[in-house]
Amino acid sequence: MSKRVRLFVSYDGTGYHGWQIQNNVLTVEQVITEALQKLTGEEIEIYGASRTDAGVHALQNVAVFDTESSIPAEKFAFALNSGLPEDIRITSSDEVDSSWHPRYVNSVKTYVYTLYTGKIMNPIRRLYTYHFYNKIDLDKMREASACLVGEHDFKSFCQSDAQVNSTVRTVLSIDIWEEGEEVKFKIKGTGFLYNMVRIIVGTLLEVGVGRKNPAWVKEVLEKKDRTAAGPTAPAKGLTLYQYEFEN
Amino acid sequence: MSKRVRLFVSYDGTGYHGWQIQNNVLTVEQVITEALQKLTGEEIEIYGASRTDAGVHALQNVAVFDTESSIPAEKFAFALNSGLPEDIRITSSDEVDSSWHPRYVNSVKTYVYTLYTGKIMNPIRRLYTYHFYNKIDLDKMREASACLVGEHDFKSFCQSDAQVNSTVRTVLSIDIWEEGEEVKFKIKGTGFLYNMVRIIVGTLLEVGVGRKNPAWVKEVLEKKDRTAAGPTAPAKGLTLYQYEFEN
Repeated sequence: MSKRVRLFVSYDGTGYHGWQIQNNVLTVEQVITEALQKLTGEEIEIYGASRTDAGVHALQNVAVFDTESSIPAEKFAFALNSGLPEDIRITSSDEVDSSWHPRYVNSVKTYVYTLYTGKIMNPIRRLYTYHFYNKIDLDKMREASACLVGEHDFKSFCQSDAQVNSTVRTVLSIDIWEEGEEVKFKIKGTGFLYNMVRIIVGTLLEVGVGRKNPAWVKEVLEKKDRTAAGPTAPAKGLTLYQYEFEN
Repeated sequence: MSKRVRLFVSYDGTGYHGWQIQNNVLTVEQVITEALQKLTGEEIEIYGASRTDAGVHALQNVAVFDTESSIPAEKFAFALNSGLPEDIRITSSDEVDSSWHPRYVNSVKTYVYTLYTGKIMNPIRRLYTYHFYNKIDLDKMREASACLVGEHDFKSFCQSDAQVNSTVRTVLSIDIWEEGEEVKFKIKGTGFLYNMVRIIVGTLLEVGVGRKNPAWVKEVLEKKDRTAAGPTAPAKGLTLYQYEFEN
């Protein structure tokens, strides 16, 4: 009897070339797939919710796979963790309907981007934050971010060589706050384009440091042109924080 | 003209066999010494305030060295950082009197020990926290810790093979609090014995989980015997947080 098992996956992206399996480099998907094949003895293919880039971290990514294994779905988390390196953890597992696929179900995704704003980088935060030592006006960034909330064509905020049918996406909220020497951006949405969160952060920072005024971000959005926006903020500051599924 | 330069040093201890130079292993002291020799062209010896163990982190350790270099003392931080790996940073540097030595001046040292208390370890915290998934009673640990504050013979809280003249030390405060899925112990004192903070944490946790009652910690202290105390908590949860000098 085949069943579909869902995994909630947490990882430190530092040591991986992102999620998706590629030739000649180590990826999170590959490491989990190999651990699953070893555990079940089956040829297993897994389907991830989000193909995070090299260096991006996840507190919660999601993946599914089909198996004939007699291991109960909810036991996979524990069974897999003993065969996985410590920088990848399965936080829980459960059984889902055989038609359930994380990419074809409505969901709300939350990303958190973190800056380290001290003059000298704190070594124990170096792998998880983007060092940005600059006076930043949080209120101006908040003002600028307001025009991005809602359903919009985010073509200006999508890496230009990305292959997509539509660049319309819905952002539900953008929150920006300070935590000690760090500044955090929490961005929720029902879908994101390639590099969209990192380009939004890079663009808001142009406003934060005063190179652009808040109204400029609306112009960027309307231009539907990647070159109008700010730079792509570095991968290591980004964490895929949470997936919430409609059912 | 020789001058004595003081460095404030921050590091991720993960990749090092502690502070002190040893044969055949990489240490923080060695890496800084080599960077200084390269920078100045001199044979330089540095003297650290605290010889942190393998895996222990520092937000602020302190070291001094004497140099004939024409580089102004306060420029050493910047000049050294460009030659150091990113897991070691000099946060600032200044000139001190030629007799000033961080081990022979009155100081208050602050250590922070961090537990990760979630069921499954968060991969991005795995190098900086001790995974301790257990119901912990913080109030009982606070009650137990009270007897350790003040001047006491901490022989029970010192690794038994340590060579010291006296095991009397003064602890100024112990604070314990929760921060999300983490529990933090902040311990301030004018001096610490070898492994003292880690043994205090390991001992308080015996109370926290209910294996011992709070009054037991006073008995441990009075026994002046390392075997009476709890285990030594793992190095990676410990950060040397701050040095405050009398002058």
